Amino acid sequence: SFSSIKSRVLIIIKEVRKKERKKKMVLKIYAPLFASSKRAVVTLIEKGVSFETVHVDLMKGEQRNPEYLAIQPFGKIPVLVDGDYKIFESRAIMRYIAEKYRSQGPDLLGKTIEERGQVEQWLDVEATSYHPPLLALTLNIVFAPLMGFPADEKVIKESEEKLGEVLDVYEAQLSKNEYLAGDFVSLADLAHLPFTEYLVNQIGKAYMIKDRKHVSAWWDKISSRAAWKEVSEKYALPV
Amino acid sequence: SFSSIKSRVLIIIKEVRKKERKKKMVLKIYAPLFASSKRAVVTLIEKGVSFETVHVDLMKGEQRNPEYLAIQPFGKIPVLVDGDYKIFESRAIMRYIAEKYRSQGPDLLGKTIEERGQVEQWLDVEATSYHPPLLALTLNIVFAPLMGFPADEKVIKESEEKLGEVLDVYEAQLSKNEYLAGDFVSLADLAHLPFTEYLVNQIGKAYMIKDRKHVSAWWDKISSRAAWKEVSEKYALPV
Repeated sequence: SFSSIKSRVLIIIKEVRKKERKKKMVLKIYAPLFASSKRAVVTLIEKGVSFETVHVDLMKGEQRNPEYLAIQPFGKIPVLVDGDYKIFESRAIMRYIAEKYRSQGPDLLGKTIEERGQVEQWLDVEATSYHPPLLALTLNIVFAPLMGFPADEKVIKESEEKLGEVLDVYEAQLSKNEYLAGDFVSLADLAHLPFTEYLVNQIGKAYMIKDRKHVSAWWDKISSRAAWKEVSEKYALPV
Repeated sequence: SFSSIKSRVLIIIKEVRKKERKKKMVLKIYAPLFASSKRAVVTLIEKGVSFETVHVDLMKGEQRNPEYLAIQPFGKIPVLVDGDYKIFESRAIMRYIAEKYRSQGPDLLGKTIEERGQVEQWLDVEATSYHPPLLALTLNIVFAPLMGFPADEKVIKESEEKLGEVLDVYEAQLSKNEYLAGDFVSLADLAHLPFTEYLVNQIGKAYMIKDRKHVSAWWDKISSRAAWKEVSEKYALPV
């Protein structure tokens, strides 16, 4: 009868809409293959959050497309889209995921205001002291040959010196604490993973980690976590 | 009687100990005269937290003294000491204060996880995109003549270009929102105060702010807050 067809059609429409809503609600992370984005990806996996990925080809300059600039006005990666909400800056995304999914997986922000303070402190050390010289090494040693621009030997030398000084402080800190922010793994540790992976592999300066006993033990511990292994296997750059 | 003397002495000892404990509990902020430290100082004043200051003379290199390195192993400023707890990195200190004193003064972290995400996003934009070129301008235009090293004109030109591009994105963001993270003042705005003050005054490039209508209105609003006026008056560098 017409009425039974109508009711079946209505059920189908309802199911399609539900699927669409659910699809819209799945978190989307942009440019998962690149190192900065992997800070966000490893956090999602640590917290057991399902997500989809959207490819952005930096080599083709897709991050300067108007559609991309509409969601990330600086033309940088990554971006996390969560339904109608969007957030950029890799370490801000990490904090957002760790806060939103606080009750599942490891508590990556610490348990008290004081512990969170230490997590924030070492996250900021990573962003402002550790990352800049390591990024300079990555650009000049890994990407310069790929992109056809000359490596700056002076920058390489100065960056290695700066990074070495930072790692000396890490060595002292990690001789007193198992992880950077204390005796618990946190966002501060995870934030170091993607570019330190460059340092020990593609950059070819693994000795900067291995020659420092406590830094080396810390690196072995955080880089052998299941979440990071999954990131390395699933989201390898094809270079 | 001996017993009454004894009990009076015990009361005095108790009071002295209480005073000592209280003194130990007053927050101490190191090197309040310098721009990075002022991120922490303005947050303390916004939240109505009483604090003491400890002078560190960067010109004399006191940040490399062993006693200072014992509390800040990178030899950087500022440090906040809160009883037995210490924390460094200016933006981490801001977050710690805003979290610990959440119930007093303006809520500088936003009210929801989503708002906090936007605060974190713009705090990280400040740290990684806004601050580096502005620091380069400050060092080359304000500090080079004072410290007797030559200004690098190429760095000045490139830094102004970079900062201009960042400010173009700010102009778009502030045309849609009263403050960076939304329609509420937050740590993200306050973090910009100390070095933007250099930009409009000592660096002599106020036009970078004034020529952008919404950035200019935002700057007028945040720099005229009572807390920032107090910082500018009480903690001016003698240069």
